[in-house]
Amino acid sequence: MSLIYAIDIAGTFVFTISGALAASDKKHHHDIFSVFFTGFITAIGGGTIRDVTLGAYPVAWISDINYLLAVFAGVFFTLIFRRYIIRLSRTLSLFDTIGMAIYVVLGVQKSIAFEVNLLAVILGMISGIFGGVIRDTLLNEIPLIFRKEMYATPCLLGSALFVVLHLLQVEEQLNFILSVLFIFAFRLLATKYSWSLPKLNFRESS
Amino acid sequence: MSLIYAIDIAGTFVFTISGALAASDKKHHHDIFSVFFTGFITAIGGGTIRDVTLGAYPVAWISDINYLLAVFAGVFFTLIFRRYIIRLSRTLSLFDTIGMAIYVVLGVQKSIAFEVNLLAVILGMISGIFGGVIRDTLLNEIPLIFRKEMYATPCLLGSALFVVLHLLQVEEQLNFILSVLFIFAFRLLATKYSWSLPKLNFRESS
Amino acid sequence: MSLIYAIDIAGTFVFTISGALAASDKKHHHDIFSVFFTGFITAIGGGTIRDVTLGAYPVAWISDINYLLAVFAGVFFTLIFRRYIIRLSRTLSLFDTIGMAIYVVLGVQKSIAFEVNLLAVILGMISGIFGGVIRDTLLNEIPLIFRKEMYATPCLLGSALFVVLHLLQVEEQLNFILSVLFIFAFRLLATKYSWSLPKLNFRESS
Repeated sequence: MSLIYAIDIAGTFVFTISGALAASDKKHHHDIFSVFFTGFITAIGGGTIRDVTLGAYPVAWISDINYLLAVFAGVFFTLIFRRYIIRLSRTLSLFDTIGMAIYVVLGVQKSIAFEVNLLAVILGMISGIFGGVIRDTLLNEIPLIFRKEMYATPCLLGSALFVVLHLLQVEEQLNFILSVLFIFAFRLLATKYSWSLPKLNFRESS
Repeated sequence: MSLIYAIDIAGTFVFTISGALAASDKKHHHDIFSVFFTGFITAIGGGTIRDVTLGAYPVAWISDINYLLAVFAGVFFTLIFRRYIIRLSRTLSLFDTIGMAIYVVLGVQKSIAFEVNLLAVILGMISGIFGGVIRDTLLNEIPLIFRKEMYATPCLLGSALFVVLHLLQVEEQLNFILSVLFIFAFRLLATKYSWSLPKLNFRESS
Repeated sequence: MSLIYAIDIAGTFVFTISGALAASDKKHHHDIFSVFFTGFITAIGGGTIRDVTLGAYPVAWISDINYLLAVFAGVFFTLIFRRYIIRLSRTLSLFDTIGMAIYVVLGVQKSIAFEVNLLAVILGMISGIFGGVIRDTLLNEIPLIFRKEMYATPCLLGSALFVVLHLLQVEEQLNFILSVLFIFAFRLLATKYSWSLPKLNFRESS
């Protein structure tokens, strides 16, 4: 499991950067504290909601100082390399997608360990997206999951895939890798080919 | 208790519809995922906050797949009948009020079971209104409880009524029905006769 | 510990007033319920997030009716003396800073009791600021911690100071007083001399 742990910490690092950059986009959030706090919330929000909903105490970032160190590293990295990061936003977006895919699968895995088989699908998705939801809400914006096409949907489907393969007794590590790759590839393809979900027409006549 | 359970599941269904319709009102939230997620949050938000605050694990929707199925049913119902639902908004508002009344009383009842007698009043109200509060906040709107006259107040009073009748040892089922009816009737009358709470005048001279 | 308890209850009272006044600033939140609910959230939000994250059940305000009574007292005080309070806003701001300092140190102390030594720094800060964060988010505003210079930073530093002195085995009561005084003095000086954190320049060339 040490590879998965390393990936988890790396995911925290990358999510912090994406959160810190979000703070830097808004007029009022330029000081160092705001960047730290926004990065922190983005990185630990989803897992905290998951653990608190499961009653999985101690909550992940409370039980292991390495998560907070990864947040600090992400904040410092953002502060030092901020001009380069912005130019590299495509690369960063890739990392963000990797981070999200890993968070989702770690989340669904932990939820299954708490014996919530089918509902683990929802908790996996929440692990991946809720840090960003809290970040956007605090910054007084409509959450990205509502604005960006096919952002949460790959999380939901990848989370469901892991549960299905788990019920089919696919070996855990293989399942982990397959589900992460699925989310990652689905998100990339959706972006590249502009896939979108059906829009709903509530007001006009059909 | 199977009647109350059926009512609870029906409340989830109705709350999902009201949440899904809220998403459909905003420009950016038209895709199916947004409708699902907004409906889901509206339906399970209040109970989740209550259970997590109580430490009542497993949280209601985690321990019973029927809540999620009711959410799915509500989402599909909204998608299929959306044009009719909008025309029937008065009817829907009735169902929403029934759902809210039931959530409040179920919430206060569960809180009492956790031996928080007086504070159960607050937790009952939170059960009824917080799903909507989270929904509105995510959609970047001022929560309905602040905008709509006499929306949360009937919940607070009905919650208090249940606690008082409980302390007076009124039979549980009777208390349940009386308190739900009280909230429902109070809300209907408040809407019909435009009852309002005293407004506060902070700025001008008296 | 009865002095600290009294201070805690007084902090709840003062935080309620500051929350209730925030509601009164916005057009739509003038009725009595809105004032109560906003005051309540401000007063109990930070401690609730802390306790739920720690799994410290029962949550503080659930286990002791005096917190709710302090909230009611704060709401009534605001309603009766609202015109004077607004004129006394400098005085109130002092009380708010005292309340915040106490909440931070009580938060870090409780977290240490749950054996989260270093991460107690974060939880202490969260105890002090998150009630206000939730209040501002519900009122659809950018949280004060992002808008006001040096608002959360003193909390973070004071929280760290308490942990350091704790690890150096400074006597608990003395540590409590020193840390509260540090936060209070730092915040006052930061306001008086317009201290600010380095601003970040993400967009322009250097």
